[in-house]
Amino acid sequence: MDQRILDLRKEVDQINRELLRLLSERGKLVSEIGRVQTELGLAHYDPKREDEMLAYLTQENPGPYPAETIKRLFKEIFKASLDLEEQQDKQKFLY
Amino acid sequence: MDQRILDLRKEVDQINRELLRLLSERGKLVSEIGRVQTELGLAHYDPKREDEMLAYLTQENPGPYPAETIKRLFKEIFKASLDLEEQQDKQKFLY
Repeated sequence: MDQRILDLRKEVDQINRELLRLLSERGKLVSEIGRVQTELGLAHYDPKREDEMLAYLTQENPGPYPAETIKRLFKEIFKASLDLEEQQDKQKFLY
Repeated sequence: MDQRILDLRKEVDQINRELLRLLSERGKLVSEIGRVQTELGLAHYDPKREDEMLAYLTQENPGPYPAETIKRLFKEIFKASLDLEEQQDKQKFLY
């Protein structure tokens, strides 16, 4: 394997680790938001909030990913968060 | 809106910004890897490399997301990278 590729892949690995850390930190925060929403009887899914986050992120997007890709990736992250909140509610009802 | 939710959302916004920065940095690295691969006549898609990254990330996953969610999110990130590399090759042929 070309040494340039190996070196670049090491940098990618480092970024993967940071992404995992940030996604997990985000998961904890969203899980906490979910708990407060459940306590207050509020819905977890908030399309206005998602649209605002997407508008901000596509506006701040420095590239090289096109805006559509950034939207797609963050929509997956939002979906993962919602799944987590719903899973949490289900577990609550088990006790 | 409940103040606790507003405060937590500010922290989520900060993490979103960091995720955008890291994803974009990753995009630049992958784009550079793509250029070297094209130069050497190597394929962009490397399933063995993807499997290794996924194995590492699910092993290091601290939660709260289940392993399947981490896999799904990173597969989307890998797909975005591949799209970028292929787009780059196409643009090359235009000149």
